[in-house]
Formats: sequence, structure tokens, C-alpha cells
Amino acid sequence: MTESCAARLFVAADLRENGAVAVTDEQAHYLHHVLRLGPGDRIALFNGRDGECEARIEALTKKGARIVVGRQRHRQSREPDLWLLFAPIKRQRIDILVEKATELGVAALHPVFTQHTTVDRVNIDRLRAHAIEAAEQTERLTVPTVHAPVALVDALAAWPNHRRLILCAERRQAMPIVDALQGLEPAAAHAVLIGPEGGFADAELDGLVKLPFVTPVSLGPRVLRTDTAAVAALACWQAVLGDWRAGWTSSDAIPA
Amino acid sequence: MTESCAARLFVAADLRENGAVAVTDEQAHYLHHVLRLGPGDRIALFNGRDGECEARIEALTKKGARIVVGRQRHRQSREPDLWLLFAPIKRQRIDILVEKATELGVAALHPVFTQHTTVDRVNIDRLRAHAIEAAEQTERLTVPTVHAPVALVDALAAWPNHRRLILCAERRQAMPIVDALQGLEPAAAHAVLIGPEGGFADAELDGLVKLPFVTPVSLGPRVLRTDTAAVAALACWQAVLGDWRAGWTSSDAIPA
Repeated sequence: MTESCAARLFVAADLRENGAVAVTDEQAHYLHHVLRLGPGDRIALFNGRDGECEARIEALTKKGARIVVGRQRHRQSREPDLWLLFAPIKRQRIDILVEKATELGVAALHPVFTQHTTVDRVNIDRLRAHAIEAAEQTERLTVPTVHAPVALVDALAAWPNHRRLILCAERRQAMPIVDALQGLEPAAAHAVLIGPEGGFADAELDGLVKLPFVTPVSLGPRVLRTDTAAVAALACWQAVLGDWRAGWTSSDAIPA
Repeated sequence: MTESCAARLFVAADLRENGAVAVTDEQAHYLHHVLRLGPGDRIALFNGRDGECEARIEALTKKGARIVVGRQRHRQSREPDLWLLFAPIKRQRIDILVEKATELGVAALHPVFTQHTTVDRVNIDRLRAHAIEAAEQTERLTVPTVHAPVALVDALAAWPNHRRLILCAERRQAMPIVDALQGLEPAAAHAVLIGPEGGFADAELDGLVKLPFVTPVSLGPRVLRTDTAAVAALACWQAVLGDWRAGWTSSDAIPA
């Protein structure tokens, strides 16, 4: 999508043709010192509401940037309605998890404390910054919402009944993920739940599988780390039920 | 699998009941100083040939360890015959890629230099160490083979004709990965090919799709980093064609 632009930035401002937008100090620094851009250079902007627009740097100094919006090049679109609930893990791996979940098109990220979760604090601001950076990189037109952490029991107590919860139940027998997903309704509201490194507590898992909105699935015979399990489950979801199959017809194939 | 063991180590030696095995200095350090184990503690050992065996630490000092093999607890099994060919990426991301590919059960890792690959050196010893560590963690009974890097053109020139190459063709139309995989033969020899951050060169991709053993697939509308694309494609492969569905019957389900 950014074929002729040197950078792609998420901004808070509305995008109106010929309107000026502000960027953050970090973004100005990135444009100036990392990418070494200057007046006249073109970038792309998105804000989650107004599609993706061309933009032109008019001024760029240590004190900030002046950027003028050009024409819209992509109309706004949304990602599929998929949430990821995950037990917080330690710093490097939670950053990887947020980056990759964003690339894989989740709409919302919900850290949840389970009985065996060993990490008790989550830096939501840092995770939000990672989600924005990954959305810029992956050329999404939205940024996933990163929610404040809650206890899993509280998330379940307030669960919206129309949303199916796909429980990745490691170390127990459950239907293989592709078979389970193929039995669910595409384009419905879904969520994927990944436990902590030590797995769910037995009583916790017993309770989860009894809930009417829960579908337990298996991710195979090997023990996966939390971040690996999240990426694997999200990829399978997008591949089977999400937008990886949207609009495909065999006439689109690369001619051999 | 390691329910009663404090550690699980890959060793080079044969595993014979009551035989003694040597561990590396790093492993002795890990047992002693990281896990704080000592004489009498039980660990698990595997070597890729003799299944997984119980073992008991008899002596553990700064100078090394003496470990005696106990009974076999898991018979040797193999991972599905899946290779990953990937363009080398920079350090942190290539480490993540090797770790997660190992968790996802690849049999062999082949770094390949494509036209747009920007990384020109690969530290194979470091990648092998990561593969061993991930195999220990994920409770595989094998460690994937990490091959020395070669040019993609050379890998293709020497390609074994019976092995299907699943080409992740970003930014071009190709059949969605699940549909493409469902058309292939399960339990056959396969490989997944992931390009560099900048994608394949146009001429390179044109050449690839003409090869009789290549199946191009799509990983959806978002731009994925190399490591994300690798994890996503391997997860879909295991979920559709690999061992994630092996042996499943509905009587195995968690009772609700």
C-alpha cells in the first residue's frame, strides 16, 4: 500500500484533504533522524476512521513537524471482530505477542490474570505503542484496542453472550483447532483465550469448558509458549474464519 | 511430559538404562546455578534417537555433572517431514523464528539468500543452540536440523522432486493457505518458503511459481514480518496437514 511513501504513521487527528495534522514528538524524531526525511517528502497517514491518506511534509525541525494531508488512497476498512485474551507474560514476550497479534489482525487485546499467571503488572502504554507501531508496519487501517488487565473470572462474569470464546486448552484433549473452527460461524464475534506458561489450573479449565460460549480447541501435541500459541491460534482463525479467504477466486491465481 | 522432572535436556550420548551420560558445561551450570539442583534430583533426557528417559543427578559440581539414565518414559517419535526455508533476518527476529519454528515442529531449518535479503551472515551455531533449547522446552523428542545458508537458486537447483514447496507469496494473489493445503497430500514431504522483509523480487517470484513442485499460497491482506509469516504458515500447516489432527476422536473431548 505504501508503494510511493517513505513512512506510514498513525495519527489522532481527522484526515481532511489540504488540512494540516500534528504528529507526536517521537514521530517527528523518527521522520527526521531515523528516516532522514524533510520538506517535500511524502508519507502516508491513517487514524482508524478516515482510511489511508497521502500526506506531504511541509516543515520538519527539532521543534516539530508540519504535515499536510493529500488525497485518500484507501477507504476505511475494519479488521474481523476477533479479540485476543491472554495471560500476561514477561516483557520481551508480551511485546512480541502484541506485535504479532496486531499483524494478524486482532481487533482488541485483553490481558487477563489467570490462577497460574506469574506476571502481576502490565505496562499498557508500552503495549499500546507496540500495537500502533505494528499497525503502521502491517498496513492495517485500524489499531487494535489494548484494554487494561482484568482477572479472567471478571472477564467471564461480564462476557457478552453473542461472542464465542475459543479456548486453547493445552495438555488436554480437545478438538483440533481447524476442525473446531470449521464448525463455527464465519464473520461472527469471536475471541481466542491463551493461558499462561504454566497452563490453566485444573479447576479453572473445568469451569471454562462448562460455559455455553466456550469452544475448547487443541494446538497439537507439542508444548507451546504463550506467545507462540497466540500467534498460531490467531493465524488459524484468520485462515479458516477470518479475512484470509475473503474475496478469493481462482481467477486471481498467479499464472504459472 | 516432564511432570515429575525439574529439567529436560538434549544430550548427544546414547541413552541406556543405568548408563552414565555427560552433559555440556553450560548444561551443568544451568542445572547447578539456574535450577539449583543437586545429587538425587531427577531430570529427563532425550537425544533424538532413544526416546525420552528419566535420569538422576549423581554428582553436580563446578567441574561437571554425573548423570545416570533411568527408565524410558516416551518411545522415540518423529515430527512430520516439514522443512522451513526462510530468508535470514536480523538477530532478535531470527532467534524468535527458530524458537517458534521448533515449537511448531519443523524437521529442518534452511536459511536461504533471496535477491532482496539484506542480512548476509548467519550464526548457525547460535541458531542450533536456540533450536535445542526450544526442543527441550516444547517437549519434542527431536531437534530440528539447522542447515548452513545457501542461495535460494542453489536450493531450488538441487530440489528433491518429491517434496512440495509451499511458497508464501505476499502482495500477490494466491490461493488462501487453508484451501491450498487442503488440496495437498497429508503426510507427504513438504517445505514452507518465506521471503525477506522486502519480499521476493518480481523475477524471482515469476520463476518460483513456474516450478512444478511449488504451490503458492496467500497469508491474507496484511503485510507480515518474516518471522510472523513463518509462524503463521507453519501453524496452518500443522493444523491442516500435520500432527495437530493425528489420533483425534470426538470421544477424547473434554466433557462439558
